[in-house]
This record gives sequence, structure tokens and C-alpha cells, in this order.
Amino acid sequence: MSVSIPPKFNPLTGAIRALAMDAVQQANSGHPGAPMGMAEIAEVLWRRHLRHNPANPAWPDRDRFVLSNGHGSMLIYALLHLTGYDVSIDDLKNFRQLHARTPGHPEYGYTPGVETTTGPLGQGITNAVGFALAEKVLAAEFNRPGHDIVNHHTYTFLGDGCLMEGVSHEACSLAGTLGLGKLIAFWDDNGISIDGHVEGWFTDDTPKRFEAYGWHVVPNVDGHDPEAIERALLAAKAVTDKPSLICCRTVIGAGSPNKQGSHDCHGAPLGKDEIAAARAYIGWNHPAFEIPGEVYAAWNGKVRGAAFEENWQRRFAKYQAEFPELAAEFERRVIKGELPATWAATKAAYLQACRDKAENIATRKASQNAIAALVPAIPEIFGGSADLAGSNLTFVKGSKGVTRTEGGNYCYYGVREFGMTAIANGIALHGGLIPYTATFLVFSDYARNGIRMAALMKQRQIMVYTHDSIGLGEDGPTHQPVEHIPSMRIIPNLDVWRPADATETAIAWISAVDRKTGPSLLALSRQNLPTVTQNAADADIAKGGYVLAENADAQVTLIATGSEVKLALDAQAALANEGIAARVVSMPCTNVFDRQSDEYKASVLGSCKKRIAIEAAHPDFWRKYVGLHGAVIGIDRFGESAPAGQLFDLFGFTVGNVVATAKALLS
Amino acid sequence: MSVSIPPKFNPLTGAIRALAMDAVQQANSGHPGAPMGMAEIAEVLWRRHLRHNPANPAWPDRDRFVLSNGHGSMLIYALLHLTGYDVSIDDLKNFRQLHARTPGHPEYGYTPGVETTTGPLGQGITNAVGFALAEKVLAAEFNRPGHDIVNHHTYTFLGDGCLMEGVSHEACSLAGTLGLGKLIAFWDDNGISIDGHVEGWFTDDTPKRFEAYGWHVVPNVDGHDPEAIERALLAAKAVTDKPSLICCRTVIGAGSPNKQGSHDCHGAPLGKDEIAAARAYIGWNHPAFEIPGEVYAAWNGKVRGAAFEENWQRRFAKYQAEFPELAAEFERRVIKGELPATWAATKAAYLQACRDKAENIATRKASQNAIAALVPAIPEIFGGSADLAGSNLTFVKGSKGVTRTEGGNYCYYGVREFGMTAIANGIALHGGLIPYTATFLVFSDYARNGIRMAALMKQRQIMVYTHDSIGLGEDGPTHQPVEHIPSMRIIPNLDVWRPADATETAIAWISAVDRKTGPSLLALSRQNLPTVTQNAADADIAKGGYVLAENADAQVTLIATGSEVKLALDAQAALANEGIAARVVSMPCTNVFDRQSDEYKASVLGSCKKRIAIEAAHPDFWRKYVGLHGAVIGIDRFGESAPAGQLFDLFGFTVGNVVATAKALLS
Repeated sequence: MSVSIPPKFNPLTGAIRALAMDAVQQANSGHPGAPMGMAEIAEVLWRRHLRHNPANPAWPDRDRFVLSNGHGSMLIYALLHLTGYDVSIDDLKNFRQLHARTPGHPEYGYTPGVETTTGPLGQGITNAVGFALAEKVLAAEFNRPGHDIVNHHTYTFLGDGCLMEGVSHEACSLAGTLGLGKLIAFWDDNGISIDGHVEGWFTDDTPKRFEAYGWHVVPNVDGHDPEAIERALLAAKAVTDKPSLICCRTVIGAGSPNKQGSHDCHGAPLGKDEIAAARAYIGWNHPAFEIPGEVYAAWNGKVRGAAFEENWQRRFAKYQAEFPELAAEFERRVIKGELPATWAATKAAYLQACRDKAENIATRKASQNAIAALVPAIPEIFGGSADLAGSNLTFVKGSKGVTRTEGGNYCYYGVREFGMTAIANGIALHGGLIPYTATFLVFSDYARNGIRMAALMKQRQIMVYTHDSIGLGEDGPTHQPVEHIPSMRIIPNLDVWRPADATETAIAWISAVDRKTGPSLLALSRQNLPTVTQNAADADIAKGGYVLAENADAQVTLIATGSEVKLALDAQAALANEGIAARVVSMPCTNVFDRQSDEYKASVLGSCKKRIAIEAAHPDFWRKYVGLHGAVIGIDRFGESAPAGQLFDLFGFTVGNVVATAKALLS
Repeated sequence: MSVSIPPKFNPLTGAIRALAMDAVQQANSGHPGAPMGMAEIAEVLWRRHLRHNPANPAWPDRDRFVLSNGHGSMLIYALLHLTGYDVSIDDLKNFRQLHARTPGHPEYGYTPGVETTTGPLGQGITNAVGFALAEKVLAAEFNRPGHDIVNHHTYTFLGDGCLMEGVSHEACSLAGTLGLGKLIAFWDDNGISIDGHVEGWFTDDTPKRFEAYGWHVVPNVDGHDPEAIERALLAAKAVTDKPSLICCRTVIGAGSPNKQGSHDCHGAPLGKDEIAAARAYIGWNHPAFEIPGEVYAAWNGKVRGAAFEENWQRRFAKYQAEFPELAAEFERRVIKGELPATWAATKAAYLQACRDKAENIATRKASQNAIAALVPAIPEIFGGSADLAGSNLTFVKGSKGVTRTEGGNYCYYGVREFGMTAIANGIALHGGLIPYTATFLVFSDYARNGIRMAALMKQRQIMVYTHDSIGLGEDGPTHQPVEHIPSMRIIPNLDVWRPADATETAIAWISAVDRKTGPSLLALSRQNLPTVTQNAADADIAKGGYVLAENADAQVTLIATGSEVKLALDAQAALANEGIAARVVSMPCTNVFDRQSDEYKASVLGSCKKRIAIEAAHPDFWRKYVGLHGAVIGIDRFGESAPAGQLFDLFGFTVGNVVATAKALLS
């Protein structure tokens, strides 16, 4: 196919190209290639199709836009500025500067109109699948005949990099299965990645690949021809039972006469001379950061946007009149993002029931019990597992899997840990749903950057990660986490819980639901654990660390988590038999504990300076609590395939070893 | 298409089915479904096609076999036992027991004939791509007209789980681009994953997907019909310029009359009654773990195997006669896995040159210099980057990218961090090549389980991870590692280096090349760093931690890594001005340091108990060296988008802050 180069340059796309060139030049870093290459696509989508309101980026039924090729951030900043969001020309001049609204990559929470943080490739399109899935689920739940309260598209731009990343396979395969017809992706098919022309490393027949996923594919679109783009977009919108991929052949950096089509313009300023040449080439005669009034006027989306929202508000008012309860629920969940008014009572009742039963069960089972109690009380809870529902115990009475044709409150994500996690980020960002996701703890590795992105974006995703240690037994070292718990405790803004019994598990779940400012991860046992919290106060457990068994004369403090708390209690008794006074601290969430007052923390850690941490995970982390004069009973090597009991013995998780360690410490 | 169920059961496949059922039952855990469902495929491949020698699993030109659906481990154990490897019937009885040769998942190094550790889904097929790539590269290098010294296939079995995982996309896409014609994959298309029938979450048109990758696809093969499998395999072998996918429709657990075709037989013992029923159904009348002599005889591969190897040895002798130098090189690299005899001289010369130049360069640049020196000296060094050659600085004079038609010593992996890492594991396992791989440090997240697998399998992969901190500046928090370095230091058997200057970088590279028992990761700066090691001995640096600036009267020890070592030296000077004596320790690799003698470690950490660790990464890790009475200057939150210098100030990496911290500690 042919691509129009030079495109019919016009002031509308000229504004995008100029802003991108100039901001990157001013910052002396950044990526001009993608914004310049996608200017025509952006113009058609943003000026003609995108239903959004620049004056209210939070309008709930807006179309979502995700720049999956996030390095092209100046594209979205230019679009937000030009259409009338609260992104000023000074913000653009501050591109990539400290605390600017225009960071190097689009960052959720920094810039009005940026729906998600992108840059780690493949995750934007995956978030977009999450947005579209959330829309589908909420539409099924809230819409009524004649009342399409939830009815918006999710659009995404993506490049070759996103398509090479494995997570794009996971997300797009699932999107095809679920028939997410309101998801429309534009592939910026410019044939260039950082290493150069992609044919040496990327020769997929991408249209065919997406057809294999069950997508509607619009191939061979000239990405510099607005009318071709318009036709493709109309075709995509017309297919409502499949996601659409619009394949736009473009020239990277289009408008830069000497660098377009080459990776030279991918990730570096064009340079003053080339920018001057580009200005002449595209017919843009305005100084840097100056946009003529008529160009602003042509781009401004506020009037259109206000009309979109007004129309929706009018329709919502009718809906409210006819379905007051549903409308109130919509307001609570989607608009305000509040938990149900009954939540306080629900959690108190559940906790009490949990304590009354005092079951000696695996914490994964305790988690399932918690989910079973939460699902009817909090309809926005939206579950799923990466093909391990029966192992993670994430499916409960009241769970209903989303299908191609129906909504639900559960997604069978398939064997797609990373895809699941990044889709759930999109769901959380969309609003109206609280996603929980699940896999074996060891496979958090596969999802890791998605976990990080949840934490970075402050999104409430609850990760139910089971089979938390060598306690899983025979599956062996590939399935036994060693480094995972400590390595995730240091992901900023992630709360990692490793509860010791059913009550601690319930409190972990409640804390995770209550936490609006970030994700929580629950590391749960495969094996049964006895009740240990009979005498612990809920409020203490919720502090993340607390004294489970005090001893005023203690010579040593035993600090443990999860399955090792009972071992610490048994060791305390054994030590007492030998005349050594010990106290026991349970530390289900070090992250929450670290946020307590210094006074509280000191009271828990205790005045005796000899401390022993016990956890079936890598030991180094615990030095922050036990110091150099304490001891850690942990695992600093890979596990083995054997029955769990034998492994706990092999790795020293025995009363005898704790006693010996304490004696050595005290001698 | 139709699938033959029940298959024409025979004693050959009966032996596989019986061993799988019985061993899983005896272990009371494991996965009978895949071995039973793939018995016919396995019989055709292993008895009729696989060129291997059970008496010598190390024969260099053997075909490689990878069980990507590693949970079906009893399949490969049964095959190894039946064909005559050193895997006894008692080993099978010990399935999944401590220190058995038959762990829950196939573990490299535990079982003769197991080529790679599998279980984490998608990585087996990805390792297989690495095996096939290594074969291609070595064939191009060593074969001569009439002398096909390197000429073997790589076969892999994979299931729906592998196909859902994103890494399968990365690996198979690249395999298509590179035209790896000796890679033949068998898809166990049984329509079942752990959550049940896959149509709710996996509806890809897989043949079409693989055609989109440029694979040769053999669709619609009845996986229980040996002759159909045979025909498909012959067709696959006949296509030599594309990898082949043979799509075998199978019934999971075939042979279990009441559980076949259902996920009930995926991952749990069948139970005594069902096993008895299955015995009758498949016509296998022998007690558990008893195989009739004629069945053993029919399976035994030793005579065939000896002939294969003898033939090759004869051909190798001729090659040796005609190309003695090449043959010697082949023996050194592929058979013995030794470094060149000149290696000691090479590294000494390079280190000296490095010290003579004493360049103030980024450590990523120093790494490139090291690679440039290594490549001509060690031809088995095989590089690559995930589309960041120009940023990671991994391509040097002497690098040659592998193409569809030619070999080389470099792979343009594309934007495929996880695929790259797991492919490199396959390359390392194959032998004859030492792979290095590269991406931005933050995207180690994407590759994380591949890194772990390299460590678990003790494979020498060298990971060149650049842009190691907030020092990368404007790209912002999505690109700035915070938790990554400490979180990878605790992956067992991984050495993480963060060198401070060009000399430390050279020593890190040398240590990584010398280390045969595991992977090494180099965390390298984007920004220039001054030379700090003028007075440090190479031997000390190689210990992973050493006293860079001693002070007998020291009141405080400053411990730093990478870009923060110079800050520590400057702070030492500033503290001296204020009358505070400090000493400075450089700690480029804590993992190597931890392996030194207690005496050495104590001498480095010093007798003064006040210690301050300084590293632009999460601080908690350092408590293992500074204890509770020391201090850490680190970063416990996400970064920001801004010029690097401003960020170092913002996060407290200033002489002023170090001085203030030292004073506070001493007061």
C-alpha cells in the first residue's frame, strides 16, 4: 500500500508536530517520532470521534483514551492542551521537568485527562482491555432498556514495541474471546523500533495475528490520510461484537524532512536546524509554543464536550427517576467511588463470625471465606484468577464469570498473570469496580511490572497470591517462592500481607478493601494453619504487627509471619521449659507496621534487644527489625520437591532450631 | 476433526500411561493428564525420530527435547526410564520425594536427559527457541561443506497454558522471523486447562496465529493416531526454513475411562479405583511399576543411540582431520565448556588498558568497552538486547546480528525482555555459547522469572541492565528502578553487580564470564561516572566489597555502590573538614562479598559500629550491613521525571545530607 508522504500538512496537525518538536527540544530529551507520525490519526480521533469533556476529565461516561506507546507523551500533552484540558502552554514548556504536569511519560494523577500511566510497553493496550472490560461489566449491570448510562469506547494507540511484548498477546487474546466490541486500537505501523527497521526482529503478519484472536481488523490504512482514517474508524465502530485493530501505515517523525522514516527521530530531539527545516516543510510559520487563535479554536473540544456531558446528565436524570436505587448505586460506586454504607457492619459481622468459627484452615481457604462474605456485600468486587480458581480459591457462591455475551463479577483470565494484573489496573482506573486477581505467589514474577504499576498509580487491586512458601511441597523449586515476599515488600506503595490464620486473613482482606490509595497483596498458605489469634485484638492486627504473646521478662523476641507464627508460639513454650523467657510478635504486614508511630513500633519490637525473625522466605529483609545482633531463620536458597513437612524440617523451621538459635543468641 | 478415543491402546503407550498413573498415585500428587494424553505423540517422537543416546545424555549433537508443559513431568521420566537413561524404576517410585531424581517438575541437573527445568509455563517453548537458535549459530560457525557436525532438531511439547502465556508470543514470533527450521513443537490441544474447558478464556485460532509468525503449521492432527503423528512429523522435518507447529488434538488423561477429557485428571491422582478401571480399559494387566521385558525391549533406545553417536563420532573424526583447529575449538567450547587458554592474558591486558585509560565514562559505556575487548577473545560470547542496543551499548565492532539466513554472535531480540532472557537460558543450556542480554534495569521486571530460572538452573547468562537509578532522569518513575537492585540481590544464586567506574565494570564482566555456576547481572549507569578505583586492587574489587579509602581512626564507615561511591568519597572529605574521620567501602557485589571469609568481611565492614550505606535504591536491604544503629541513604518511594542532577538532590544524594546523617549518627 502507499502512504501519503508528505501528508497534506495542515495547521491542525501542524500544531501537534510543532508542539512535539519544540517541547522535546526545550527539554533536550524525549520522543518526537511517534507524535509526529500519529498526528493525522490523533486529529481524526480526538477532533471528530472522542466523546470527552475537557472541562470535566472525571465525567464517568467519557470515552477512554490510552497512549500505549507512552514514550510519545508529547502527543497526548499536545492533544490535552489543544482541546482545552487544564494543561497550559507553560506546562508544555516544562515538559519533563520536576513536578511538571508533563512528565517524560504520561503519569496518571499528574495530568488531567491522562487515564493511565504508560511507558512500560504493552501495558497500555492491556490497561485498555481492562477499561473496555469494566465498561462491558458495568453496562451489563447498570443499563436498562432505553437507558444506556454506561456506553463508551476505549481507544488506544500502540506501536510495534507494544505488539512485540508478550503481554499484548495475553490481553488481546482475552479481549477477542470476550468480544470487547467497544475497544478500538490504532497500530502505528511505522516499521521502526529503537534498534532500527523492524524487519530483522519483527515480521509478524499482525492483521492475521489479530484475526486469530477474533478481532475485527481494518488493514492497510494510510495513517496520514484523514479520510482513510475516518473510514476505518467508522468501520471499527460499526463492529460491536469484536474489538477492532486499525492498522495504520505511518512514517515515524513525519514532517521532519531529513529524519522522518528513520529511528533517528524516535527518541531524541530533532535539533534546531532540523526543526527549522520541518517548520518550512509542514508550513508552520509560528514561533515555538505559539499557536494561532484559529488553530486553538478549531481544536477546542469544550463546547462539544459540554454537550456530550449535558446529554448524558439529562439521560442520567431520567434513569434516576425511573431507577432510583440503581442510580444511587451508580453514584456511589462509579461517581464517588465509595464503599457501601453497610460496609462497617459487614466487616464487623464477618470478623466476628470468623472468630466464632476459629477454623484451622489454610489461609487461602480463609481468603475464599472472606471473598464469599464480601461479594454479596460489595457488588463492585470483581474477581478473577489466572487459571487457578480451584487452587487460589477465588471463585465463590455468587461469583459469575463474564462471557462474550454476558456481564458478571469474575473473569476467567486464563494462564495470563501479567495480562490479568495489567487488565485489573485498567479496571481499577476505570472506576466502579474493585478488582482482585490471583495466581501462585511464585508467578507474581510474571506479573511483576503490573504490580509495580498498580502501586505507582495508587490503584486498589487486591492480589490473592497463594502457595506462599515451601509449604506447597511437591511441586518443587519452580513453584516455591523464596525471594518473592521480601522482594515485594520493597515495591513502594504496595502492602504485602502474610496472615497467620483465618482472622488475620480476614483483616488483611478488610484492610485491602479499605485501602483506596494503593494495591494490597495477600500471600496465602496452601496448607492448613491453626488459629493463633484468639487473644489478639482486631485493631492490633490491623496495625500490621503486634505482640501476640507478651512476656515482661523476655530475653528474646520472636517475630514471625504466616505459617511460622505457630512455630514461634511453640518455640516460646519450649524455651519457657528451658527457663528462657520469650515473647512473640506476629507481623502480618510490615508495610502497614512501618507506618505506625515510632512509639507503637518500639512497643511491639520490645525492649529486649535479642530478636529472632522466623519466615519461610529469604532472610535478609528481617535485618531491618532484628539488626546485626539478632538472628533470622529463613531460606536463602531454592527449595526442593518433597512433601511440605519434610521441607520445613530440612530448612530448619522446627522448634528445636528456634530454641537452638535463641540459646546461641543469648550465650 | 475426529480424535480416536479410545486410541488403539498398545503396550508401548500403556507403559507410559501406567507409569504416570502409578507414580502420581504413589506420590499422592502430580499431573497424570498430560502424560496420558500425549502418550502416542511421545511414542512416535521418542521411539522413531528422536536422535539421542540414553547412555550419553551429553552427546553434543543429540536432538534436544523440552517438555514445556512441565507439570506433565511423569511423561519425561517414563520416557527416560523406558528408553534406557539412568532413571530407575525406584526413581519413578520416588516421584516427588526429597532429593529424588524425579522431582515434581523436571529440574535440570537432577535427572539425566532433562535438558531444562520447566513448569513455569511458556518458558519451555522459549528455552526451546534458544536451543534451536544456538544450533543455528553453531552450525553456521562450525559446519563446513560435507561436514555437518552441528545438525540436530529441537522438539518441544506444549499445552494451552504455554500458548496463553505472553512469553510464548515473544519467543515464537522471533523464531518465525529467524526461520528456525529445526524447531518442531507439538501442541497438546486437549481443550482443557486447570479452570476447565478453555473456550471461556482461550479461543485463539492457534494455527492462524503461528502462520502469522511465519511458522509452518500442520493442523488437525489426531494426537492419538500414531500414523497421523508420523506423517505430521515427517512434514515438519521436510520444511527446513521455518519452525513447525504440529497441532495435535488430544484427550487429556486418555486411558482413564471416567476422567479422560476432563480437568479432573489434570493435576490430581486418579485414585485407586479409577486406576484399576484404566488398566482394564487400556489392556495393561501388570502391577504398579512392573513393565514386561518385551516392552522394555521395544522402548530401549541404547542401541539406536549408540549408533547415532558412533556415526557422529566417526564424522567428527573426519572433521578433526580436515579442520583440526575448528575441531579443537568445538571441543573446547561445546564439549568441555572451557574458556580459551588465552583468557587469563586477555583479561589481565584488558584490565590494565582500562586502568591506563582511567576514563570517566558511564558504566554502560565501560561495559561496551569490555564487550568490545571480550568478543574477539571469546568467540562464544553471544550478545543481544531487547531493542535497546544503542542505549544498553551492547553492540560492538565485531558484533554480527543473526539473520534468517546467516549466523552471527548477536541477536536483535526485539522488545521482548522475558523472551530474550528465557531464550538465552536455552542458549546457555545448549552449550557452546555464553549469552549476554540487555534491557533497562527497570524492565528486569518483565524478565524476572527468566532471571530466576537462570539462577535456579545455574546457567551462565550475563544480564547487562543499564539506566540503573533515578540517574536516568527525565524518563521518570516508570523507567527508574527503585526496588530492583535489592530485590534481585535476594534471588538465590544470582550475582548482582553495581560497579562504580570503568575498572569495577571490567571486573564485574570478568567475574561474570568466569562464573560457570550461575548468572550475573550488571546494573549500569546511564550517566558518566568518574574513576574512583585508582588505589584499589583488582583482587579486592573481585571480592565484591572492599575498603576503598581506609582510615584507622574512623568514627563512621560509608558503604556505597555504583554512582554513589564518588559521593561517599566526597562526603569523606567533607567530614574530614569537620573533624570527623570516615572510611569508605565500595560494595559492587554484595552476593560475592557475602561469600568471602568472615574475617575478610569483618575487616571490610570495619570495627567502628557506625555505618552509613548510600545507594540510589530501596534502603531496607542495607540493614544487613549497617544494622539498626547505622543509617541508610536510599529511596523508599517512586522517582520523578526531571533532569538527573535535580533528582539526586531531591532524594538526598548530596554531600550535605551524608554529612548531616553522619553527624546525627555520631551525636
